[in-house]
Amino acid sequence: MSVEVGTELPEQVFRITRADLVRYAGASGDFNPIHWNERVATAVGLPGVIAHGMFTMALAGRAVTAWTGDPAAVVEYQVRFGRPVVVPDDDEGAELTVRGKVGALLDDGRARVDLTVTSEGEKVLSLARAVVRLP
Amino acid sequence: MSVEVGTELPEQVFRITRADLVRYAGASGDFNPIHWNERVATAVGLPGVIAHGMFTMALAGRAVTAWTGDPAAVVEYQVRFGRPVVVPDDDEGAELTVRGKVGALLDDGRARVDLTVTSEGEKVLSLARAVVRLP
Repeated sequence: MSVEVGTELPEQVFRITRADLVRYAGASGDFNPIHWNERVATAVGLPGVIAHGMFTMALAGRAVTAWTGDPAAVVEYQVRFGRPVVVPDDDEGAELTVRGKVGALLDDGRARVDLTVTSEGEKVLSLARAVVRLP
Repeated sequence: MSVEVGTELPEQVFRITRADLVRYAGASGDFNPIHWNERVATAVGLPGVIAHGMFTMALAGRAVTAWTGDPAAVVEYQVRFGRPVVVPDDDEGAELTVRGKVGALLDDGRARVDLTVTSEGEKVLSLARAVVRLP
């Protein structure tokens, strides 16, 4: 593919339901009830049940691996956790939209991809970038 | 807690089995067969079935959240994926050892935690650090 600064990645939209969070809890071993119990979540001042930050980060990363084709092409990945993703108690859950574009071409055939990750129009990761090896 | 540069986090040792990878595949939606099928993994040149990089990253992050107590205290997190974690086909699976220490005290009561993440003695993340808010 021809990649230059400004090249945009295909936008990816994910849906996160509470069932996904329960599955993620089981897979990750992080059973913090703020990720599955509304009562506990609101008691600690959250607007509701929120997604695991690492789950949000993983989904955002999938927009990059979907673009590179090869997950192993992602050599570096970082985020700053901004705002939690609140997951309503219904079948639709929360929407997570991941946009990305190439922010810089680096040495050794690598590029920096800058991601914009939003849920319901609000930015949830305030810095999210990956370094990928271009094919 | 009293935190200074050099303060060490309690070491955490995780075990990753192939069953964990299947659960992570289901939770993350990343069903790439290199994470559950030995034949496919070796056909593409890997030494065997390997853990999802984001799963390794998530486990390493748990050593930080276990230390801070509050997962929301982690404001930033980055890794460089170095070497894959190879997961044998047995009940023990792979071992993942996470060590960390405070590398710098930052402004606004934050600290940078530098992690050393190894499996079977080999470093698997070549750069792994988190920025945390201290209590």
